[in-house]
Amino acid sequence: MKKIAVIDGLQYANWSDRIFRQMRDGDVVAVHVTICYHESFRETVANIAAWNRRFDQFSNLIFPFHSAGDVARAMKEGRTAIVFGCQNCSPIENDIDLVHICRQLGIRFMQLSYNNQSLLASGCYEAEDTGITRMGRQVIREMNRVGMAVDMSHSGEKSTLQAIDLSERPIAITHANPAKWHPVPRNKSDAVLKALAESGGMLGLSLYPHHLKSGSACSLASFCRMIAETVELMGVDHVGFGSDLCQDQPDSVVAWMRNGTWTRDVDFGEGAPGAEGFPEQPDWFRDNTHFRAILEGLRKVGFSQEELQKLAHGNWLRFFVESFDVQRS
Amino acid sequence: MKKIAVIDGLQYANWSDRIFRQMRDGDVVAVHVTICYHESFRETVANIAAWNRRFDQFSNLIFPFHSAGDVARAMKEGRTAIVFGCQNCSPIENDIDLVHICRQLGIRFMQLSYNNQSLLASGCYEAEDTGITRMGRQVIREMNRVGMAVDMSHSGEKSTLQAIDLSERPIAITHANPAKWHPVPRNKSDAVLKALAESGGMLGLSLYPHHLKSGSACSLASFCRMIAETVELMGVDHVGFGSDLCQDQPDSVVAWMRNGTWTRDVDFGEGAPGAEGFPEQPDWFRDNTHFRAILEGLRKVGFSQEELQKLAHGNWLRFFVESFDVQRS
Repeated sequence: MKKIAVIDGLQYANWSDRIFRQMRDGDVVAVHVTICYHESFRETVANIAAWNRRFDQFSNLIFPFHSAGDVARAMKEGRTAIVFGCQNCSPIENDIDLVHICRQLGIRFMQLSYNNQSLLASGCYEAEDTGITRMGRQVIREMNRVGMAVDMSHSGEKSTLQAIDLSERPIAITHANPAKWHPVPRNKSDAVLKALAESGGMLGLSLYPHHLKSGSACSLASFCRMIAETVELMGVDHVGFGSDLCQDQPDSVVAWMRNGTWTRDVDFGEGAPGAEGFPEQPDWFRDNTHFRAILEGLRKVGFSQEELQKLAHGNWLRFFVESFDVQRS
Repeated sequence: MKKIAVIDGLQYANWSDRIFRQMRDGDVVAVHVTICYHESFRETVANIAAWNRRFDQFSNLIFPFHSAGDVARAMKEGRTAIVFGCQNCSPIENDIDLVHICRQLGIRFMQLSYNNQSLLASGCYEAEDTGITRMGRQVIREMNRVGMAVDMSHSGEKSTLQAIDLSERPIAITHANPAKWHPVPRNKSDAVLKALAESGGMLGLSLYPHHLKSGSACSLASFCRMIAETVELMGVDHVGFGSDLCQDQPDSVVAWMRNGTWTRDVDFGEGAPGAEGFPEQPDWFRDNTHFRAILEGLRKVGFSQEELQKLAHGNWLRFFVESFDVQRS
């Protein structure tokens, strides 16, 4: 099979030389990496500083994403462009001016809420979803203005539908699957997926076992059939990968993702008592070199070469162009 | 006289539409503006956010400086490029990674110390100057790497000479005059000025009355003769303006500049009890439209058109090219 470049819509690995080499070996030309779950602005800046050091240390493998043109550059140079994103709005604290500041520091995606209610939107685990808040409306407008994409992966349904409606630029659900295939709070209804596609947005399909039918035992064929059905629903231009790969992370990290600094109880999130840790990845997707097998699987369910290129990178690339460009004053 | 564009090496005005119009009317194409005296990182970010709002509000008059090419853009568009600088190293706190972060947020100049001892260097008011500290050496190297210019305007002599020696890029004294002309701690010895010029650095000549012979009563002719003598000493390629104009600021601001958050006494700095406020500007230099009169005065003391262009903007422009460009990884 001819090499097809991949853009991954979300990863949060325990970054290392090995992982960056696997990205290169897997033809992964751009990855949206999470740089914040619960961190304050200052803590997020420290995370960016850690990335600055990685960019120096591993400059032969990775470089900081600046604009959509960097995807072509990554293809040409055999490196991976790293796109920053936040899984929560905690870095902007309660200060709308920090949206622009975060954009200046390279942040290109921000989720409006992470499981819980935030200052901006409801999370997918709240009993009631009250929609986009007053500040949320302002922040969506500001994100549109400065070129930062709205991500609703962990938000509630009503908030998500409102964000699709309010945002003047297409929005993303960077890592989730259709709830019809596997009904959990993190996966999305057909209503959301259709509205997302109609507004020009993007869905990144997740390989995190809690989002997969049969979890860790999910088969590659089942995953590929699900993609074919999702394309049926959304069209071939609005679907890509958002693997949610958390490679080499210790279990303490998933506990921190779920509990952050917001609770004194233990929140098990998608896990359960006795199964608190990271679920095991399916054996056909454990690192960045495994996208190739998925593309092979997608070919088997009937996608053409042109369609595979859209799913693998073309759709995300178009989204990058539409989402991040900003009129320089 | 033919219009000559001006780059000013330092201002800290009470920014307003009126002042930005005067910049445009005075053909001031770029200004290094102070965004921090004593502020922490987070406070400096708030100051940058305030500038982001100004860039939106006054986009017909000003825009954020990104690279040396913006000077030509400003000339063409009749606007002013705003270059951020810090008069102290307080924004990097004790974290060397904040140098790069500050550079990403647009900061292009940083003084290593402001009057007092800092983590990096001694200030010009300390009884003893112990030179560049261990952290100071690291920070100079990091500033060289990321493209942020070292400014030693308020530092002690030994620290300044060491910074000139240690820095691999030329450094600046953005706002000061020769001590030979007016001997105060803030003005610089011939030894410093010669070392600065020999290393390719820049001196911005100050119009702050405490730096002028006869203070507020200094004549334009005296100021222009001083420039001629400074050019004699340093060569015509290493001198420009650094007006230190603090237009429309209330006296509380100069008290804050001097006292910041470091003392419970009152430090009078260059002032004195009974004369704590801002000194009155000489009547021939009160706003950005008055550079034209200075250039006329310089012509009278014998400078050619070509030399005037160097002094007015050419030298600073060369310094910008040499100081801020950074190899993109």
